[in-house]
Amino acid sequence: MLKSHGYAAYDKTNPLKPFNFERRDVGPGDVQIDILFCGVCHSDIHQVRDEWGGSIYPMVPGHEIVGRVAKIGSAVKKMKVGDLAGVGCMVDSCRTCAMCREGEEQYCENPGPVLTYNALDKSGAPTYGGYSNNIVCDQAFVLKVSPKLNLAAVAPLLCAGITTYSPLRHWGVGEGQRAGVVGLGGLGHMALKFARSFGAHVTQFTTSPGKEEDAKRLGAHEVVLTRDPENLKRIAGSFNFIIDTVSAPHDLNLYLNLLRTNGHMVLVGAPEKPSPVAAFPLIMKRRSLSGSAIGGIRETQEMLDYCAEKNITSDIELTPIQKIDDAYARMLRNDVKYRFVIDMASLKSS
Amino acid sequence: MLKSHGYAAYDKTNPLKPFNFERRDVGPGDVQIDILFCGVCHSDIHQVRDEWGGSIYPMVPGHEIVGRVAKIGSAVKKMKVGDLAGVGCMVDSCRTCAMCREGEEQYCENPGPVLTYNALDKSGAPTYGGYSNNIVCDQAFVLKVSPKLNLAAVAPLLCAGITTYSPLRHWGVGEGQRAGVVGLGGLGHMALKFARSFGAHVTQFTTSPGKEEDAKRLGAHEVVLTRDPENLKRIAGSFNFIIDTVSAPHDLNLYLNLLRTNGHMVLVGAPEKPSPVAAFPLIMKRRSLSGSAIGGIRETQEMLDYCAEKNITSDIELTPIQKIDDAYARMLRNDVKYRFVIDMASLKSS
Repeated sequence: MLKSHGYAAYDKTNPLKPFNFERRDVGPGDVQIDILFCGVCHSDIHQVRDEWGGSIYPMVPGHEIVGRVAKIGSAVKKMKVGDLAGVGCMVDSCRTCAMCREGEEQYCENPGPVLTYNALDKSGAPTYGGYSNNIVCDQAFVLKVSPKLNLAAVAPLLCAGITTYSPLRHWGVGEGQRAGVVGLGGLGHMALKFARSFGAHVTQFTTSPGKEEDAKRLGAHEVVLTRDPENLKRIAGSFNFIIDTVSAPHDLNLYLNLLRTNGHMVLVGAPEKPSPVAAFPLIMKRRSLSGSAIGGIRETQEMLDYCAEKNITSDIELTPIQKIDDAYARMLRNDVKYRFVIDMASLKSS
Repeated sequence: MLKSHGYAAYDKTNPLKPFNFERRDVGPGDVQIDILFCGVCHSDIHQVRDEWGGSIYPMVPGHEIVGRVAKIGSAVKKMKVGDLAGVGCMVDSCRTCAMCREGEEQYCENPGPVLTYNALDKSGAPTYGGYSNNIVCDQAFVLKVSPKLNLAAVAPLLCAGITTYSPLRHWGVGEGQRAGVVGLGGLGHMALKFARSFGAHVTQFTTSPGKEEDAKRLGAHEVVLTRDPENLKRIAGSFNFIIDTVSAPHDLNLYLNLLRTNGHMVLVGAPEKPSPVAAFPLIMKRRSLSGSAIGGIRETQEMLDYCAEKNITSDIELTPIQKIDDAYARMLRNDVKYRFVIDMASLKSS
């Protein structure tokens, strides 16, 4: 077995602490990666604190993983030792259901993908995530990472990036279209960058006047302050697509009314409680409210390659692993621009 | 001006009464139709009783109109005197916006289609519907009706028919797919017939065990009683498409959970109050909740032609105009299989 060292939540209330554990040895199809950086996703906090239920402890969170290939199995052709590589939210899936065959492993139906942490793999062993010094992953779920980009700022692409890239592509957002982004955080700032890069006219919706300048820097053509209903009335019925990244409770109907006929609004942030949705605004313009979950491995690779070509990365703040609880506290106050990334070099001193 | 005679609501509380009024003379592009039958839509009741606000009295309801062409304008080529013809929910639109140019006049953006009754036409005159002996309508909004079908049973196709046909076509329901129908009334029974005819495996959802036999006769392969949650658990994640025809408040999440990945649920009945929608079920399978309004004129003609070819009509109960208030009362008790149609011959005796 491979010796691993990381930080883990031992229960849902106490701070994360150092944790020594083992990962499987590299099999013929496996890639072992020495982790250099790991992004910190809001879902890490939800799972560490068992807010979604069913958490498995000790839990090593982290699913925005980048590093360098340290070892490969005999059957691995797609990468070699020394390459940069990434692992996102999934490390396996059934590979046989209709969704897996279509390359949409995130929607695996049999019974679902094996998540990178806080899950059980096919052998029944718990999966451990990227707040650690290494990971072993089947090559089918390992992404190639270009050396052209700032590696630390690539890490959040593995979740925040693909979660926004995929719906923008799925619903064909691009030239000649108006796209809106609700919320400006880890997901929202990536949605701005992608929507702008795809050629859409991009609007940031926010409750905070202070975010205007930053939203424009990140790609917004305009910023609409949603606290004033008049601002929304002016632009009713004008959007082809709105991506909603907010997981706090908020009124979805405000935004549904901004869609044109055949417009789509897609949720990537999940409010805990159901949100009231009015039927008439959907009916009168054949609008849709949808959800979208990360993206498949093929599309994640496409996104990483696109980012390398267009020089797109996340805006990040590096943190040592020892300050992860501070990072969580600041994330809960929206006090980060726009994603914390753990510098795994810090792990050596713990 | 053309002398017309019909039944009108004079206010929101009293029964409908006879009403003499005038319609415009037949212009060069107009068709005058002697109305033979008019279907009774639930929206007639809502508007008669001003439940949606803004009702215009006296109001002659009715937008499921069939009859015989009595007169045509000099520029009318598509039909001749003596032909059967129909008028649905719209009698005009701007004809210049993107939606009108695409033949989706129901979504006219400038500012919306001119509805067949309870609206103002481009001259500012109130529109009067089909509870009357005749109507004058621009040929662009007049439908051709085949003599092959029972004419009275064709009338409801103009609203209940197209309202269900259009979303089934828009979302590509057909062979190899599972389609569900929520509610078995005027709209639901047409949805069953179309979904079955298009080749889908069709499921009727109902709270009433007594509807099982009828649903099967109308096209359902299976009937699922929704009062027992176990019945729904068994079929979670298995539907490509669900059409929801119910306008009473009900739990949409029950049905959203039945959709497969990329599945669509479309509302054609509009509950008055917003319905709570959970985000996770949308996100985890990229499901969509949409709405759909009637259909464009081109598609309505396509639907009528399809019905003539496939021998599809509505299941109806004929009523004289004098019993319209009884019909309304029975509709509110769901006591009609499945659409009342007014026999306009009865108007002569009032």
